[in-house]
Amino acid sequence: MLRGKFLTIEGSEGVGKSTNLAFVRDWLQAQGVDVVVTREPGGTPLAEEIRSLLLAKRAEPVDETAELLLVFAARAQHIAQVIQPALARGAWVLSDRFTDATYAYQGGGRGLNSETIFQLELLVQGDLRPDLTLILDIDVELGLNRARQRGELDRFESETMAFFERVRRAYRARAEQTPSRYALVDAGQDLAAVQVDISSILNSLLNNNGA
Amino acid sequence: MLRGKFLTIEGSEGVGKSTNLAFVRDWLQAQGVDVVVTREPGGTPLAEEIRSLLLAKRAEPVDETAELLLVFAARAQHIAQVIQPALARGAWVLSDRFTDATYAYQGGGRGLNSETIFQLELLVQGDLRPDLTLILDIDVELGLNRARQRGELDRFESETMAFFERVRRAYRARAEQTPSRYALVDAGQDLAAVQVDISSILNSLLNNNGA
Repeated sequence: MLRGKFLTIEGSEGVGKSTNLAFVRDWLQAQGVDVVVTREPGGTPLAEEIRSLLLAKRAEPVDETAELLLVFAARAQHIAQVIQPALARGAWVLSDRFTDATYAYQGGGRGLNSETIFQLELLVQGDLRPDLTLILDIDVELGLNRARQRGELDRFESETMAFFERVRRAYRARAEQTPSRYALVDAGQDLAAVQVDISSILNSLLNNNGA
Repeated sequence: MLRGKFLTIEGSEGVGKSTNLAFVRDWLQAQGVDVVVTREPGGTPLAEEIRSLLLAKRAEPVDETAELLLVFAARAQHIAQVIQPALARGAWVLSDRFTDATYAYQGGGRGLNSETIFQLELLVQGDLRPDLTLILDIDVELGLNRARQRGELDRFESETMAFFERVRRAYRARAEQTPSRYALVDAGQDLAAVQVDISSILNSLLNNNGA
């Protein structure tokens, strides 16, 4: 049995992740690919409970290392219960966020040491990395205006503009460092143009898939 | 302002931790010591929510690395919000369990690599270590019989006898490796004898306190 591919979609607030995640899922299914759609933090009952702890607004200041360890605790559970079993049976996994978000939000946004993130990534993932990461990239102000139209903001969405500028820079830097694993998509275009770009990226991936 | 002392009480199920924690608190207060009593996992609202996730019995198997990271996430929050501020203002901190429990339960009990635990300890604690750890030591079968009389068992209390034998061995090994930081108390004695031993240990600590 050929191992499935692991795809992740990343981007900060208001970038159109949900819409384009559904587009990628439908596109792959139309090609006959068995796709498991999931998200981070979350993806299992325990990991979703951890997600709720992370997103809740609370009076108590959240220690940055505690936040980082909660993110990786949820990830360890998600990998063990969902991602590895799906890939092993040959399904593709499509995740709304993964470890690039940790480098972008906790590393870029909060300024945590990326060497610490790297050590936790090794501990939790071993050699598991996405085969392809789509980074939906948009001007921060435009994205935040879109996100705010959706209503109530969570603990992360309530961060400052400067925070999201750092998140965006961190995502772009990762794409530049390892261009073979990332596709940076201009999410400021109209939706039809974004999805033409995504289709073209998926076509290349499928044609390079030695199935 | 002289920094406070950090005391922890450890031991597996049914060893009399709660009773003897109250005894230590009362003994120190009678000497005029300002004591903050707390516990792990827990000690802050967020850390107590993490505790609930850890102790809940659930249908989903809990990944061992996820469990370990949840324990240290709660600890990071506990240190930042409770332990460090209390020690800094000169109070003593008395905690029902701390990192020795991680070496005993996740390391000894579950067999996780103690080097991994050591790396997380460094990340979360820096150089913070208890000044004194009381390990209440008891025959495993005797302890479990006591614990079962208390009623409903949590996810850890429901482990096997072999698990608790490994927990006990790990606690004893830590006490033997660093005798200066640990006091091993025979908790199989009657309560009065246990508390005579504890008083004598606390007397030594207080007399060596360069206040």
